[in-house]
Amino acid sequence: MARTVADAGEFGLIAEFTHGVEMPVGVSVGPGDDCAVFTPRGDVVVSTDSMIEDVHFKRVWSGAGDVGRKAIASAVADVEAMGARPTGVVVALALPADTPHDWALEFGRGVRAECETSGAALLGGDLTKAPVIGVTVTALGDLEGRPPVLRSGARPGDVVAYIGRLGMAAAGLAVLTRGFRSPGAVVRAHRVPEPPYGQGALALAAGATAMIDCSDGLLADLGHIAEESGVSIDLLADRLDVDEAQKTVAAAIGGGDPLVYILTGGDDHALLATFPATTAVPEGWTTIGNVRSLDEGEAPGVTVGGSPWESDAGGWRHF
Amino acid sequence: MARTVADAGEFGLIAEFTHGVEMPVGVSVGPGDDCAVFTPRGDVVVSTDSMIEDVHFKRVWSGAGDVGRKAIASAVADVEAMGARPTGVVVALALPADTPHDWALEFGRGVRAECETSGAALLGGDLTKAPVIGVTVTALGDLEGRPPVLRSGARPGDVVAYIGRLGMAAAGLAVLTRGFRSPGAVVRAHRVPEPPYGQGALALAAGATAMIDCSDGLLADLGHIAEESGVSIDLLADRLDVDEAQKTVAAAIGGGDPLVYILTGGDDHALLATFPATTAVPEGWTTIGNVRSLDEGEAPGVTVGGSPWESDAGGWRHF
Repeated sequence: MARTVADAGEFGLIAEFTHGVEMPVGVSVGPGDDCAVFTPRGDVVVSTDSMIEDVHFKRVWSGAGDVGRKAIASAVADVEAMGARPTGVVVALALPADTPHDWALEFGRGVRAECETSGAALLGGDLTKAPVIGVTVTALGDLEGRPPVLRSGARPGDVVAYIGRLGMAAAGLAVLTRGFRSPGAVVRAHRVPEPPYGQGALALAAGATAMIDCSDGLLADLGHIAEESGVSIDLLADRLDVDEAQKTVAAAIGGGDPLVYILTGGDDHALLATFPATTAVPEGWTTIGNVRSLDEGEAPGVTVGGSPWESDAGGWRHF
Repeated sequence: MARTVADAGEFGLIAEFTHGVEMPVGVSVGPGDDCAVFTPRGDVVVSTDSMIEDVHFKRVWSGAGDVGRKAIASAVADVEAMGARPTGVVVALALPADTPHDWALEFGRGVRAECETSGAALLGGDLTKAPVIGVTVTALGDLEGRPPVLRSGARPGDVVAYIGRLGMAAAGLAVLTRGFRSPGAVVRAHRVPEPPYGQGALALAAGATAMIDCSDGLLADLGHIAEESGVSIDLLADRLDVDEAQKTVAAAIGGGDPLVYILTGGDDHALLATFPATTAVPEGWTTIGNVRSLDEGEAPGVTVGGSPWESDAGGWRHF
């Protein structure tokens, strides 16, 4: 029988997860006490995000390291979306007692790798038993004296821009769901998102008026900005770069239109932001639309080329 | 058919959970954006804690409001144990799609009631689907310019004191496990702990040298202080007040010795602290033991009346 997490024990696993973890300047207490302690330089931002086995990931589709990296990345993306610098995470991990010890160790390595990539310290966590694997990451960030970029700040005349991947993870999920394992680019995107770390703070510095990370899909997430800001957003479809792998997937199984992944696919955690038209968007960002004021009686929303986009597929629904 | 959380929908439930929530001074952004934003006055403390259905609670033993209150209380107790003022919580809730809508609403009311009691603002959360109910609460606190009280600061000559309940929840769990519903005092203690909110900061101000919240049991948690501080702790058994309800339970089902609940029962989230012997312990705290230096070759640990305490029961094991 392979060694399980029950064999390793709670305190043994925690020791393995935290062994040699180094705390950056500004963190005076790391894992091991009742709480971690850190010294912020400005306002603190906080967000929490869960991933549940067979709801958000499957062990047959994603390695344990992928799950660890994805859990950190999707939580830290929310910190980026406020314009804050990621400072740390706490990780609550629930595991079935028969989970292989190796799975847990590889998960821990994924967590630590993504923490390093994102700049967030592993501040602490919790370990418990559950019938399926569940990971809840709470991410913290430091605004370092600046005001946050909210969803509600978009103004008529602003441009809409993004940085990161759009619709790659959704295309990956589509092929995995149908039993395929390629194209590799989209499958890898489903397994591990690559949020554009550091770009949130750059967007804030560049004068972003509103920002959100794309977790529910481009239309749904820009819809949140439109609603909170009381504006209409129009996307320019020809500005949305379609990846070759997305075209391949759409041709094979997606009804032919790769835009469905880009417009409705979440989970890539690109950053979406609005900027004053007079401002140059930061290097690497792509302008994809415009913000306009609402007509009389018009509800806030998002259009594509001036018209509502229609498809049977919608954004991600949690229930 | 009763209305379920799937009928209510993710965004509907979130709106119900957060409707009318008021943010205290110092919280500039509450639920609804990518992150909440708050302005700390000093170092920030953070801890995360999960409760899983049929591992930490059963729906037949605890009402939904009890579960919500307990999840907040057990997380905020860790903030108290650093000597910090609770500032806020984020709550990740995982629910089966067929969970009754009423269960979720009552859970939300419990969360809000305990937030109010503890002084922690409900800063945000996450809602997702899962095969069983899971709640992960991340609690934040503000040290307001003071240094934290760690587990590692106990010094030979210090006294050990506590405030709160000891072993009441464990006695409650013992009777519930055997199919009973009384005595009410211990059953209620299992359902909803009552951490001594505000006492952590008072203990810090009174000069506490080490502190921990009692979640794994008196021996286990004082053992953490002993180990981190490199000392031996001796408890005075005659100082441990046994509740009448604990005597009743011990006589009926616990083998006759109610001390087993007090020494090994966690989940009440009393605060345990060490203070210099020259200091008066804060009002309401009870002195229960002493800290002494290790003899040569002696391992850090906890004794009762000078001897190791022996029982088949141990502290809470998560696997």
